[in-house]
Amino acid sequence: MTIPSPDNTSVSVGQGRVYLVGAGPGDPELLTLRAVRIMAKADVVVYDHLVSDGVLAFLPPKAERIYAGKRRNEHTLRQEQINALLVKLAQQGKQVVRLKGGDPFIFGRGGEELQELAKAGVAFEVVPGITAASGVSNYAGIPLTHRDYAQTCLFVTGHLKETKDFVSADLDWLALTRPRQTVVIYMGLSGLSDICRQLIAHGAQPDFPIAIVQDGTTATQKVLVGTLTDLPERVKTSGFTSPCLIIVGEVVNLHRELAWYVPAS
Amino acid sequence: MTIPSPDNTSVSVGQGRVYLVGAGPGDPELLTLRAVRIMAKADVVVYDHLVSDGVLAFLPPKAERIYAGKRRNEHTLRQEQINALLVKLAQQGKQVVRLKGGDPFIFGRGGEELQELAKAGVAFEVVPGITAASGVSNYAGIPLTHRDYAQTCLFVTGHLKETKDFVSADLDWLALTRPRQTVVIYMGLSGLSDICRQLIAHGAQPDFPIAIVQDGTTATQKVLVGTLTDLPERVKTSGFTSPCLIIVGEVVNLHRELAWYVPAS
Repeated sequence: MTIPSPDNTSVSVGQGRVYLVGAGPGDPELLTLRAVRIMAKADVVVYDHLVSDGVLAFLPPKAERIYAGKRRNEHTLRQEQINALLVKLAQQGKQVVRLKGGDPFIFGRGGEELQELAKAGVAFEVVPGITAASGVSNYAGIPLTHRDYAQTCLFVTGHLKETKDFVSADLDWLALTRPRQTVVIYMGLSGLSDICRQLIAHGAQPDFPIAIVQDGTTATQKVLVGTLTDLPERVKTSGFTSPCLIIVGEVVNLHRELAWYVPAS
Repeated sequence: MTIPSPDNTSVSVGQGRVYLVGAGPGDPELLTLRAVRIMAKADVVVYDHLVSDGVLAFLPPKAERIYAGKRRNEHTLRQEQINALLVKLAQQGKQVVRLKGGDPFIFGRGGEELQELAKAGVAFEVVPGITAASGVSNYAGIPLTHRDYAQTCLFVTGHLKETKDFVSADLDWLALTRPRQTVVIYMGLSGLSDICRQLIAHGAQPDFPIAIVQDGTTATQKVLVGTLTDLPERVKTSGFTSPCLIIVGEVVNLHRELAWYVPAS
């Protein structure tokens, strides 16, 4: 297969550059053609915890691989160290691929890394990836918008700057309980009970639909659908582990009708 | 290049199936590997206005092409006709690719089409695509979230069921003016003046940052950054045309620092 190569993304020979690449939600087949083309040219890759082996398989064997971590409560490299590393590698004249799960500009801290590159005068490009909300909802059969149920969708994370654990006080509960919208909560497993309690306290119906998806788009995907009242307990007995995505909204009810993806057993 | 093929998406020979495929925001290189693999097997494709020729080039020459329209104010096929067509083609035993701009589950009416397929007992799969908010923000150098400015992002469209023109009364202005979020408005060009006026009326600062992007991720991409007060007039004199994406939030200020994509002149 020939992958088209737009002029504007050609690599300047002998000049270092950082490619901030979104690796998508898990399934390696959800990589974009552009991500695959750029990964094939990498001298070195700096990758996060959420990037799978199946994705890394698209790198050339000779490419140096640096694990940057970002697992919950275990930041192998601090953000400042990652920023400095990217600048150093590019200044050595290398083609640097900075590989992130999902999309670099949605909860990926991509903007912060680019600001440091810009300050240092390092050339960069950005490759969008399928964000978890999009990939996971598609594989779980839960449309994020639907003219009958949700006109808007809101993406939220409980993890703020330097916050390791879920802090519910940081969430804008009034925004999360607006009508006719779907709310997607990234990295919310540890705060699930608190999230459900707060949503009800701020006006949501106790039987409002909510779904949780573990390992979305992969062979180990698990989906559980329930209500704000019963889901937290059922998640505990079902043994869900991070990373999980939480979807709150009437569209969750479409899962039983529209689920099509059957993970390998 | 070898594209991995998960077992669960193998085509059942002699049995019709509909693949609801997200074509991404414009740049054909933002197609996923899975989209390209499935398009290569298509007997027939039913595609929308926003799907570019560069994307259609990945179809086999023998594949029948049916244009479903959906240009603003010009629905070549009504949604009900599209639904019925997909069912009919699948029942003829064909491998049907239903190709949509962006992501099928974010303002794509994908859920509605799948509901009709499910009712008719037609097998289907869904392939997520890069949604416009993600692709366009990446190519415009505007991160949708940033720990210093926006903890959440909200995707909105002004177009509701059977509504051809922008109707501001349908938008939840209180949700759109929450703090520390980025708002992305799909298909909002015709309502831009009204949007800016309403945001200010509901508490946004008159000099709050807003950007508009036409033809995002393509060779004709145009970006204009301004304020809620001055952007509507400047857009008129700059000759912007649909499709456009509007981004409202403090992250817009990062565009001048982080813009890297230079469209062909």
